[in-house]
Amino acid sequence: MARSFVSLSWLLLVAACAQPPSPAVQAEPAREPPAEPAPATAAVLDPLPSWNNRAAKGAIHEFVNRVTKPGSPDFVPASERLATFDNDGTLWSEQPAYIQLAFVFDRIRELAPQHPEWKTQEPYKSVLAGNFKQALAGGEKAVVELVLASHTGMTTDEFAPIVARWFATAKHPKSGRPYTELVYQPMLELLTYLRANSFKTYIVSGGGVDFMRAVTEQIYGIPPEQVIGTTGKLRYELREGKAVLVREAGIDFVDDGPGKPVNIQRHLGRRPIAAFGNSDGDQQMLEWTASGSGARFLLLVHHTDAEREVAYDRKSPIGKLDKALDEAQAKGWTVVSMKDDWNTVFPTASAAPEAAP
Amino acid sequence: MARSFVSLSWLLLVAACAQPPSPAVQAEPAREPPAEPAPATAAVLDPLPSWNNRAAKGAIHEFVNRVTKPGSPDFVPASERLATFDNDGTLWSEQPAYIQLAFVFDRIRELAPQHPEWKTQEPYKSVLAGNFKQALAGGEKAVVELVLASHTGMTTDEFAPIVARWFATAKHPKSGRPYTELVYQPMLELLTYLRANSFKTYIVSGGGVDFMRAVTEQIYGIPPEQVIGTTGKLRYELREGKAVLVREAGIDFVDDGPGKPVNIQRHLGRRPIAAFGNSDGDQQMLEWTASGSGARFLLLVHHTDAEREVAYDRKSPIGKLDKALDEAQAKGWTVVSMKDDWNTVFPTASAAPEAAP
Repeated sequence: MARSFVSLSWLLLVAACAQPPSPAVQAEPAREPPAEPAPATAAVLDPLPSWNNRAAKGAIHEFVNRVTKPGSPDFVPASERLATFDNDGTLWSEQPAYIQLAFVFDRIRELAPQHPEWKTQEPYKSVLAGNFKQALAGGEKAVVELVLASHTGMTTDEFAPIVARWFATAKHPKSGRPYTELVYQPMLELLTYLRANSFKTYIVSGGGVDFMRAVTEQIYGIPPEQVIGTTGKLRYELREGKAVLVREAGIDFVDDGPGKPVNIQRHLGRRPIAAFGNSDGDQQMLEWTASGSGARFLLLVHHTDAEREVAYDRKSPIGKLDKALDEAQAKGWTVVSMKDDWNTVFPTASAAPEAAP
Repeated sequence: MARSFVSLSWLLLVAACAQPPSPAVQAEPAREPPAEPAPATAAVLDPLPSWNNRAAKGAIHEFVNRVTKPGSPDFVPASERLATFDNDGTLWSEQPAYIQLAFVFDRIRELAPQHPEWKTQEPYKSVLAGNFKQALAGGEKAVVELVLASHTGMTTDEFAPIVARWFATAKHPKSGRPYTELVYQPMLELLTYLRANSFKTYIVSGGGVDFMRAVTEQIYGIPPEQVIGTTGKLRYELREGKAVLVREAGIDFVDDGPGKPVNIQRHLGRRPIAAFGNSDGDQQMLEWTASGSGARFLLLVHHTDAEREVAYDRKSPIGKLDKALDEAQAKGWTVVSMKDDWNTVFPTASAAPEAAP
């Protein structure tokens, strides 16, 4: 089932490098004043200071109050307060290309000395020449080949520090910032606010699960066991008496589109009561969450800010938001306009989030 | 990979009903005095009162102290205190047959009126005649057929109450007790003790994940999202605008043997620091846990008590404990003798466990 699912959205970046150098991710300028600033006395206690006082912020507060207030008809016990977040485009930036793809390219270059044949063999040859558009011209097949070449063959114990080392040094090409800083400050505040109200926060992403886990605790306060993602095949082995898991050259499950509710059921065994996404790949996760009984909260991040990030939606090859936007409007899901709802996009400095429950 | 893995231990019960009516699970008689009773003044504070003061109990205490005491060279941060427990034979009884198999047989009988063809068709015919030995004579193929016929075709929302209703009324054939009371009292105390020391407790079982989840919170204090098990295929659908997941007639992944570390990695993303099992199906989970760096704790429950439960190990078709027992002895893993280490086997009355963190 996983392998026959064709809309591999996190791999669908073929056209990405063909895009014009659209307004790119910029280092955050000085924080803009909120469109409707809260009174200074109240701002001190505001758990969502980067959110302007508009409908989206109000809807978040209203939902949290409804499900947490004892005696409320919509009260939900703490143990059932599960919230799922997409990652690419919802918690961190996905433009001009998925962050994991930057890792793929860097890793291929790092491994090249061990693979002299790559000098003449596509798609590696183009990667090594820095021609990413050409490297991706082979479509999904080329992307899968590059992902497997860069992500497999080692044990899980070996892979984690490879990813961690990359994050420690790699920089976003346009902004020059570490990728770990390309997270959305308002979403960090939202994660912390929900956890402070006894929610368990999960990532449910099309990204590779062990790639994300290398940094999710550091950047989001989300521990590895609360990260659900696309998985590769693993093989158990004893090596000199030590048990290892070898990352094999095959995809096990693609956690995207209808795969998200399936994987949520496998991991959580019940519906979340809140779900957060930004693209059509999140539509089924939001539908699945919305279909439970009791109070529910569904939110889409709409990338409307060409100045501070990138404006894109219905026609973007990455993070396409089309059908899910129509459904959100029809059903009254909360749609966040980054331009209007957020007074800050990126953190001004690295800050460790609060630990997850 | 999952389907080609042949040692489906939780399905391997073909010979089970052919066994002599060996000493069976009995309602717990009056609690026996501990072999080496602790002083009365200390017993009040003992978190493991059903454990006799022998080496196994001491090893548990020593490990918990090592990893939780600030300043200890083996200190483990609370966020990394993950403990995984097998279920059948480790937390609840698996004799004379896996509890899930009793559900299978009852469910087949419940569904029979809708399947008149089952009256003449094996393995159903024998199930309906109450001849379980004959029903299982078809080996793994027959068992898989019965499991799929009883577990699939409905949505996940429909399946959960079916299982919950069954547990509310079904009784163990020998003891007459509800299956929810066939849990091991010393292991309930151990789960509570670990959680009181900030461990996250997980089930990692060959049993069907959604079958277990119907009762794990009630009987163990383990929430659905901390239950890892064998999974069936799921299909996402919209029915009259409502999102559902349909349980399809296919096995997705068998969480047994080398499948346990693979599934632990998928779900947790890191090694547990403690693992608990009772059979060869748990061997790789214990090896995987043992192979991490830092303090580790590995424990096998050895079914040595013919009087209060059933004595079985190397030659049992259910819960076979042979290679793992050799490895435990060679490596110094803790082996619990139910007869000698536990002064109580089953709870004397239903009691709700403390909630999991």
